[in-house]
Amino acid sequence: MLQWENIFASRASRMKASEIRELLKLLERPDIISFAGGIPDPALFPAEKVSAAYAKIMNGGAASSALQYSVSEGYRPLREWLVGEMAKIGIPCTVDNILITSGSQQVLDYLGKLFLSPGDTALVTWPTYFGALQAFNAYEPVYDRLIPMGNRTPEDYQRQAAAVRDGGRVKFAYVTADFSNPTGETLSRQARLHLLDLAAEMDIAVIEDAAYQSLRYDGEPVLPILALDIARNGGDIENTRTLYSGSFSKTLAPGLRVGFVVAAKPVIRKLVLVKQAADLHSSTINQMAIAEVVPDIFEEQVAKIRTAYRARRDLLLAALEKHMPQGVRWTRPEGGMFVWVTLPEGLDGAALLARSLETEKVAFVPGQAFHADGSGANTLRLSFSCASPDMIEEGMARLGRLLRSVILDAASLAMKAAG
Amino acid sequence: MLQWENIFASRASRMKASEIRELLKLLERPDIISFAGGIPDPALFPAEKVSAAYAKIMNGGAASSALQYSVSEGYRPLREWLVGEMAKIGIPCTVDNILITSGSQQVLDYLGKLFLSPGDTALVTWPTYFGALQAFNAYEPVYDRLIPMGNRTPEDYQRQAAAVRDGGRVKFAYVTADFSNPTGETLSRQARLHLLDLAAEMDIAVIEDAAYQSLRYDGEPVLPILALDIARNGGDIENTRTLYSGSFSKTLAPGLRVGFVVAAKPVIRKLVLVKQAADLHSSTINQMAIAEVVPDIFEEQVAKIRTAYRARRDLLLAALEKHMPQGVRWTRPEGGMFVWVTLPEGLDGAALLARSLETEKVAFVPGQAFHADGSGANTLRLSFSCASPDMIEEGMARLGRLLRSVILDAASLAMKAAG
Repeated sequence: MLQWENIFASRASRMKASEIRELLKLLERPDIISFAGGIPDPALFPAEKVSAAYAKIMNGGAASSALQYSVSEGYRPLREWLVGEMAKIGIPCTVDNILITSGSQQVLDYLGKLFLSPGDTALVTWPTYFGALQAFNAYEPVYDRLIPMGNRTPEDYQRQAAAVRDGGRVKFAYVTADFSNPTGETLSRQARLHLLDLAAEMDIAVIEDAAYQSLRYDGEPVLPILALDIARNGGDIENTRTLYSGSFSKTLAPGLRVGFVVAAKPVIRKLVLVKQAADLHSSTINQMAIAEVVPDIFEEQVAKIRTAYRARRDLLLAALEKHMPQGVRWTRPEGGMFVWVTLPEGLDGAALLARSLETEKVAFVPGQAFHADGSGANTLRLSFSCASPDMIEEGMARLGRLLRSVILDAASLAMKAAG
Repeated sequence: MLQWENIFASRASRMKASEIRELLKLLERPDIISFAGGIPDPALFPAEKVSAAYAKIMNGGAASSALQYSVSEGYRPLREWLVGEMAKIGIPCTVDNILITSGSQQVLDYLGKLFLSPGDTALVTWPTYFGALQAFNAYEPVYDRLIPMGNRTPEDYQRQAAAVRDGGRVKFAYVTADFSNPTGETLSRQARLHLLDLAAEMDIAVIEDAAYQSLRYDGEPVLPILALDIARNGGDIENTRTLYSGSFSKTLAPGLRVGFVVAAKPVIRKLVLVKQAADLHSSTINQMAIAEVVPDIFEEQVAKIRTAYRARRDLLLAALEKHMPQGVRWTRPEGGMFVWVTLPEGLDGAALLARSLETEKVAFVPGQAFHADGSGANTLRLSFSCASPDMIEEGMARLGRLLRSVILDAASLAMKAAG
């Protein structure tokens, strides 16, 4: 009998089931108030419009194209629409700068494939999007900490990177510039420009994960990193080092699996080859359905989502203010789906979750998995995208009660130890 | 300005645009009679049924699920239906032995990721499916020639593999057992059993690409390699070494991008992790649409395609018989979409194509790209799946005329050289 472990590649031997994802499967129990899942509210999906789009495509003479193989680059009318959208946010480009993918998760996989040899360094923030670490891990990089606001110099990065890698080099810095998963935070214009300086000095690429970019609830929009990169390089995307990864999953519907990446042509040309070899192309019919609905509904759809999520964010922030004990801190995001909570030093998010599920029936995601170095034990992520007002009030009341008790226990333990 | 080539991984630097695929883009001109594209005939797509499935899903209360994220393993009712289909062809299994993918091309990418470290050896036939070479190439294997009928012993394979690799080892043998792309040939039961013996002696996996498995036009079905593997291992798929890769692209419609892989649970569990990291899951709505239509229409749909393609194959074989000059040989496939033509030694398929496009306006795919070692210059692939009777008769008449002239030229050149 074949011992599979003997013939798996080393990258595969290291792949383990994610504790978070395994946990999330258990959280579908109706008695749990969950702030764990990072998914959009299905009640906000534009189901009627999408349904009409499929009907129109299939009954209007386009069925043969919709069901057939199509080009790896992606459905041209969708890329053409994206060219217009990109122009609105300061990113002039052509259809040849855009590849359609099966969600923006696939962009991360393909960029790992494009850039990372084993031992290469990827710069990521502590914390960062957990799924990015999963995608990159398949290409066996090492991670170094990216601090966009520049407490460290390029020389620091290069020295540290040289120390940890083995024949590899630093390839890219990965950031979510707007309303990041997991922290909800947004990089200032100054931080973005600093990051571009850093990338230029290190001669590396910047991957800008813009999955939440449209979901701003207040504050002034900041130009995307790619837009700033273009602006400082003669207005020409061909002179830039930034790859912009976008998604329809948070605005329209994730179940269609359509995302995209915008970058200089040499990158897109290679990514087309990567995609051709990996899955030929993304679903033709789904790309056509999205291209059918976006001209009519994209703006109003985004407005609808913003209104709904803004209210939930406000309720969550108010409930945190009301119920959290002293010593607990949290972010105040201007958009997105997440609030990031930092517990007093020494508390453990995973242990708290275990207790919370048992005694309070409240779920969230412990923050450690978002840290490439395994730090962040005292952090956790709350998602408000699917939360009702009652859930938010009751959930935070319970979590606050639990935290007060946990903090008291810790304090009395510390006093005992001191006495 | 960033020099992209400096930061691409070595695997990406080696990726080149496929001459075949670039060529195929040019062949959409209406004045060309093309036997090049390996795509299904869109006139045979079950468009009405698929259209009704989308309408039912979107209007029948399942819209929220269809548009939402779903599990990496794949839509359970579709996996349950596949369990029944697998049982019919001698493959008893459970839903936990099945992963749904975005087409069977994605299976090949994921199996490359799962098994191949740089320098590992993949055994493939000369010729083999070109897209498999593309998918595996991303993981930088070396190739060794698989001869399923056993002119070479396991020791031969091991000696040669040891000579060419550098710290790697032989990981798997990849074959299309039924009506292969490009040759149309089918492995006999004896050859399949021999391949399993070989794989057991080398302690490697077998990847059985079953993309065309349903499309048999005559002759007796041969049990899948996985079925034979199960039969000789106590009837338990958990004791096997074969991975069965299937697709809905040739039977229902490729534009939905739905395929699947069937294997022992340790492999499927790892592939679920690979998929989670690479694109989270395949399109929910498309998986649901396929699950909706298959119980009603799969059998009749396959019967319809078989009838249509059988007639085209018969016409093509008759036209080859009628028009090809002496010295040209071809396969007589019992199914699938392709006939494989071998020209007299010394002729070149790529040069012939250039002349054919210029003087005869007939297109086909030169065979060299299907050979991992670059051999096969005197071969070419003809696809009959989209060919009308007129196209077949006229196309083969023209190709025969050209070949007679080319063979005459070659003979007179040879006589001059001899004289």
